[in-house]
Amino acid sequence: MPDLLDGGAAPDPDRSALRRCVGDPAEFERTHWGRQPLLRRTGRHDDLLDLAAVDELLSERGLRTPFLRIAKAGSVVPAKSFTGGAGLGAEVSDQIRDDRVLEQLAAGATLIFQGLHRVWPPLQSFCLDLSRELGCAVQANAYLTPAGNQGFATHYDTHDVFVLQVAGVKRWQVHEPVHPDPLERQPWGGRADEVAASATGAPYLDHVLEEGELLYLPRGWLHAAAAVDRTSLHLTLGLRRPTRYSIVEALLGLAAEDPQLRAGLPIGLDLSDPVALAPHLSATVSALQDAVAKADADDVARRLRPGQWTAHRPGPIRPVAQAAFADALTADSRVRPRPGLRLAIGQGRIELDDRTVGYPAECDPAVKALLSGAAVRVGDLPGLDEQSQLVLVRRLLREAVVVPA
Amino acid sequence: MPDLLDGGAAPDPDRSALRRCVGDPAEFERTHWGRQPLLRRTGRHDDLLDLAAVDELLSERGLRTPFLRIAKAGSVVPAKSFTGGAGLGAEVSDQIRDDRVLEQLAAGATLIFQGLHRVWPPLQSFCLDLSRELGCAVQANAYLTPAGNQGFATHYDTHDVFVLQVAGVKRWQVHEPVHPDPLERQPWGGRADEVAASATGAPYLDHVLEEGELLYLPRGWLHAAAAVDRTSLHLTLGLRRPTRYSIVEALLGLAAEDPQLRAGLPIGLDLSDPVALAPHLSATVSALQDAVAKADADDVARRLRPGQWTAHRPGPIRPVAQAAFADALTADSRVRPRPGLRLAIGQGRIELDDRTVGYPAECDPAVKALLSGAAVRVGDLPGLDEQSQLVLVRRLLREAVVVPA
Amino acid sequence: MPDLLDGGAAPDPDRSALRRCVGDPAEFERTHWGRQPLLRRTGRHDDLLDLAAVDELLSERGLRTPFLRIAKAGSVVPAKSFTGGAGLGAEVSDQIRDDRVLEQLAAGATLIFQGLHRVWPPLQSFCLDLSRELGCAVQANAYLTPAGNQGFATHYDTHDVFVLQVAGVKRWQVHEPVHPDPLERQPWGGRADEVAASATGAPYLDHVLEEGELLYLPRGWLHAAAAVDRTSLHLTLGLRRPTRYSIVEALLGLAAEDPQLRAGLPIGLDLSDPVALAPHLSATVSALQDAVAKADADDVARRLRPGQWTAHRPGPIRPVAQAAFADALTADSRVRPRPGLRLAIGQGRIELDDRTVGYPAECDPAVKALLSGAAVRVGDLPGLDEQSQLVLVRRLLREAVVVPA
Amino acid sequence: MPDLLDGGAAPDPDRSALRRCVGDPAEFERTHWGRQPLLRRTGRHDDLLDLAAVDELLSERGLRTPFLRIAKAGSVVPAKSFTGGAGLGAEVSDQIRDDRVLEQLAAGATLIFQGLHRVWPPLQSFCLDLSRELGCAVQANAYLTPAGNQGFATHYDTHDVFVLQVAGVKRWQVHEPVHPDPLERQPWGGRADEVAASATGAPYLDHVLEEGELLYLPRGWLHAAAAVDRTSLHLTLGLRRPTRYSIVEALLGLAAEDPQLRAGLPIGLDLSDPVALAPHLSATVSALQDAVAKADADDVARRLRPGQWTAHRPGPIRPVAQAAFADALTADSRVRPRPGLRLAIGQGRIELDDRTVGYPAECDPAVKALLSGAAVRVGDLPGLDEQSQLVLVRRLLREAVVVPA
Repeated sequence: MPDLLDGGAAPDPDRSALRRCVGDPAEFERTHWGRQPLLRRTGRHDDLLDLAAVDELLSERGLRTPFLRIAKAGSVVPAKSFTGGAGLGAEVSDQIRDDRVLEQLAAGATLIFQGLHRVWPPLQSFCLDLSRELGCAVQANAYLTPAGNQGFATHYDTHDVFVLQVAGVKRWQVHEPVHPDPLERQPWGGRADEVAASATGAPYLDHVLEEGELLYLPRGWLHAAAAVDRTSLHLTLGLRRPTRYSIVEALLGLAAEDPQLRAGLPIGLDLSDPVALAPHLSATVSALQDAVAKADADDVARRLRPGQWTAHRPGPIRPVAQAAFADALTADSRVRPRPGLRLAIGQGRIELDDRTVGYPAECDPAVKALLSGAAVRVGDLPGLDEQSQLVLVRRLLREAVVVPA
Repeated sequence: MPDLLDGGAAPDPDRSALRRCVGDPAEFERTHWGRQPLLRRTGRHDDLLDLAAVDELLSERGLRTPFLRIAKAGSVVPAKSFTGGAGLGAEVSDQIRDDRVLEQLAAGATLIFQGLHRVWPPLQSFCLDLSRELGCAVQANAYLTPAGNQGFATHYDTHDVFVLQVAGVKRWQVHEPVHPDPLERQPWGGRADEVAASATGAPYLDHVLEEGELLYLPRGWLHAAAAVDRTSLHLTLGLRRPTRYSIVEALLGLAAEDPQLRAGLPIGLDLSDPVALAPHLSATVSALQDAVAKADADDVARRLRPGQWTAHRPGPIRPVAQAAFADALTADSRVRPRPGLRLAIGQGRIELDDRTVGYPAECDPAVKALLSGAAVRVGDLPGLDEQSQLVLVRRLLREAVVVPA
Repeated sequence: MPDLLDGGAAPDPDRSALRRCVGDPAEFERTHWGRQPLLRRTGRHDDLLDLAAVDELLSERGLRTPFLRIAKAGSVVPAKSFTGGAGLGAEVSDQIRDDRVLEQLAAGATLIFQGLHRVWPPLQSFCLDLSRELGCAVQANAYLTPAGNQGFATHYDTHDVFVLQVAGVKRWQVHEPVHPDPLERQPWGGRADEVAASATGAPYLDHVLEEGELLYLPRGWLHAAAAVDRTSLHLTLGLRRPTRYSIVEALLGLAAEDPQLRAGLPIGLDLSDPVALAPHLSATVSALQDAVAKADADDVARRLRPGQWTAHRPGPIRPVAQAAFADALTADSRVRPRPGLRLAIGQGRIELDDRTVGYPAECDPAVKALLSGAAVRVGDLPGLDEQSQLVLVRRLLREAVVVPA
Repeated sequence: MPDLLDGGAAPDPDRSALRRCVGDPAEFERTHWGRQPLLRRTGRHDDLLDLAAVDELLSERGLRTPFLRIAKAGSVVPAKSFTGGAGLGAEVSDQIRDDRVLEQLAAGATLIFQGLHRVWPPLQSFCLDLSRELGCAVQANAYLTPAGNQGFATHYDTHDVFVLQVAGVKRWQVHEPVHPDPLERQPWGGRADEVAASATGAPYLDHVLEEGELLYLPRGWLHAAAAVDRTSLHLTLGLRRPTRYSIVEALLGLAAEDPQLRAGLPIGLDLSDPVALAPHLSATVSALQDAVAKADADDVARRLRPGQWTAHRPGPIRPVAQAAFADALTADSRVRPRPGLRLAIGQGRIELDDRTVGYPAECDPAVKALLSGAAVRVGDLPGLDEQSQLVLVRRLLREAVVVPA
């Protein structure tokens, strides 16, 4: 099994994104993680997003749908109501029009920014840190709601969330799950009646969230939020935590390698008939139990790797500067692993999520030194002469495996 | 559990589509079904398709892609090379142009007709019969190949096929599987090297298939076909047989109902690390073994029902004539179940693949009589007065559950 | 200027599609063509379409949207309500589902078949004949309307129509135009108020159209149609007649060749300001008048050619049979021009709407003989030896310029 | 005719974008505008764009195709080679991947940024100013080319350009037009042979453009550019100048109002036959000459208005801040017209490019004061009491006609 690495040094614990959200991580995991909501005063979130940032996104960044959605009176406003082309050289018709958004705001609509971890640098960096600490995908959305707006009816999400109140206030009413730990394929719409019934009972939590406060909700917890007396802006960080069911799915994939489980069935068998099905069901259950009993942790881990490694994109690089740096590389140049890049070092190759980079066996010590986490001077790489040091590092710079230190 | 019905009388055994293909079905199942190829002289297939039918499809039926694909020298010809709009009132650009197809034919291309069970009535009817006898989806394709054309390289399919040589001759070379009983997710491309190596060995079968002959190939058997000295036209009936793996997938669906298998995992757990994964894998395997042991045949059968029931579309109806028939219905009118329609009769409701039709409890005997398989006179339906008989039958005519007898 | 030809003999005047519709063509042109409606008893239209044909199209031909549209209560029914995929090998989701169409019919919807000149052979042939006689594009639609259905409100079309009542009856109310001879860019929606006001006045014609009757309406004439007491089926043949405005557009195209008319304008000129515009308008008008005065009929005709030549598709060919015919060609084989194919013979080349076929100068007499209209024996082609005769004809067969006689 | 206004004060002449590009505008118009190239030293352009800005766009702004295109060895690199989704909440697959762009750069590809006037604020503002001064659409593209890259072959554009060399150097070779003042519909590809032939002659200009230099090329001038010894970054500002042909097109639109020019033609007339066409051509030319002679400047100007008014988008607004400003409006608030917004004030209504805003007649003096160009205090608006002043201004704020001063 190759060595598994997460490029770059671990995030600085003093500047931990997780600690900023939840305080002591160990205490949080023990008491709240996947178990119950947490309400906490964290201090202001303006460094991550504020109202001026929202205006800048709407008017000067060429934002395009679906990175903005708009809802009004409980339904989604068609994108063509607030998008358009921008003429010569910018004809694509999905660009946000600031004046149309203003019109929607004035009419009481709610703005929903999606994927802010892609388009707003402070959140790009914060979500990457959080993702590395939690080991799961993190998505940043923001909701701008006018005063008095009702928002969405009571529902649950199939992923955990951190809610960060950025501006204004918003009232949150939270009820216990009707279906604990729902999978993505088990959305609240399938249990709408149960959810609505629970929502009439006494809430687990009824709180007006203020600027600088954070609310953690595990998947499945019912919630409804409503703006109060002035415009509210909050961030939602969605956490797609892996579950045991991910492991079940990997086991199903392995089962396809077992000829017993691929076998055909008799002519004319009606699978929808329980009586006809029964003997084939028994045989299949036995064979499946045997197959999963034999499953090897290495095999299962390798099947889970793509989901784990692509849960977050690695840290941004600067393509033009990095290409120039590679062109001008000397023995005195210093490089380090690309932050957040997941990889495994095997026999003469680096395995990445989407490709494999091969190298000669004699580079092995140098590659390990390069990817150990710390910045290294090119001329200090072990086992290679200077020419080979430069060739190797230039290659890994161009493959975006290492970055200028 | 409701009664499961397959609308209409069973296909006439003397005109059995399966018998026409394989001779004695019992002998075929024992010796060949999913086991090994069968080569057989069946008599001519012109009633199902012939060269004139191919020309009619190409020039007078408004055929559109992807119902025709064209291949030349081993690669797919872009659809825009042989399609176009037809001006006023027929602007869609995916219509086959007969003159462009001629140009392709003259240049040695192979025509591949897909989904002929949808667009050519004799095959629509034949495939429906075969599908009902086999209990699986049946797809009809046809291949028109110029003389001397090489065709596709040795490969395997993930479904069984009946090959019916309609015109000309074609040479088939068949080798034993390198991966028996492949699933749909295990196409030959993933084992291209193994397949190519096997193809150099002595073939299991090397035969020039002539008009009126049939070849059966179970999934996974390697094959290559090449036109010989004149244009060849053959039909391929693809059979998507259900497998034990379908049952495994239904069990996976049931597993999602088990809270043990939906549970979350610790903060920061790296699923791609076998050591970190191991304890969670053990716990998951145990819980999964318990869960599948408890699986109930009724539950599993119901989960398998959609796949089974939509494997083939029921027989065609005549909408205008049927609407007129419903409007003019009398006690003397005779109706019968729609051939090939799958349904279950429950407590005051008929369950269909895509909806449920409810009816008053007192209609129960009448509904059962209607759906028993034979044609019935409306006035003979038990337990209802004439007015109610008419209302019930009109409703089921409009729902396309019964048809004029 | 090359010789202009319309492939194949002229349609037989005794079987003239135009005569069948309008009686004496000369009298029709004098009195009705583009001037006023015509109402006429023609005899039944069942050979072109009937109710059984409609059922066959809906259930056995794999018809796909947009060749069927459905309207109910004045609005269009979303296609997903009556289409679907058909599983294995026929997954495209735009296929008509006969049972869903029945459901729509039972609920009082109107079926609109579009582009029947593409998918129903008798209409393919009839529309081609009509198109060649009229010199314009002809489109066949059909409307199946349940009893009592209101149909569309009073409106006008921007093309002429022949309405052929196939089954049942329908009441037509016709008013004089509010905007004579509207162009395609001047649809009735832009004058909805005027149209609605006119519709309250006394009609020019108020008639219940019966089976075997035909109504001709020039573009711009207001009309409304309503089903009466039973299901109505009528055909609409839409005629896109060329107009003087087509010539105006060709002149505009020529004007782009005049440097005077391409010249730039001063910095900062506001074209939306009449005062600033005025001097540039004067200069442009003068230059445009000069430019159109010099326009040459040859140049304008060539610019109008693409629209004219692609107004209808030429007659269908039989690609497989024709390819085989070309392979087996002898001096005794007989060929003729492809019916309805427009082309021009120039210096050593045949100009078609979408390409040019070159040939050696010595083939000129043979090419002219081939394209003169009548069937010719290959061995009788003038000026070539037998080998060259075969090469030439084989080429033109494969180019779909000639067909087997 | 309503008063035509361009919202906001005219751009400050001392900070004129046009002057920055060309020096004295009057001299430029006299000598170069649409006539001949201009080469000029302007000083550095880093405030508009630099290499760091390019990296920021590539990695932190969520840029999506087609705002970036990549070319390599003369052909366009398929977008899927350098784009991808970003997982949870940012699934759209057209997002630029910085690591893939680096890979392309390292392989010698050229990056082409399109529509930078939409996504990079300094260029948004600069292009808006330039657009208002020139009275035409302005588009900003940037080209990043590796050392030694050949770039595009000699060609011409159908719009004028300002080329601003931002970093590195690039050699430009310019030849005189083969087709002066080409229209958009007359791209160089249609005259590729003539262009290639001219390109072998002595160039009009052969210059290595350096940082801080600008090159102006009128439409139609042939040019080729090649990187020299290091990475080059240049901005291209494309100017879509209106031409006399815009006026010709407006005249064609007016001609459609003339019944003489909409008239039909005889049955069977073949427009592609010059002899048959000739008499109809004569009649059409006469009628067209008459029609354009009568064209009214007001009518033509109104037809040209949409193109003129949407040539550039008005200045950006801040939707959230502006909505809050409107909510908190007092008599002491100050507002001004939205910069760059084109409008006309008519009888009780403001005409905008995409809608009309009506208001009561008594507001007329206040509306004129508001839109006169300068900032005004709400309480100073003439003819209205304070309540009406607030209502009017709030309305125009929400319509994005005025902005906070």
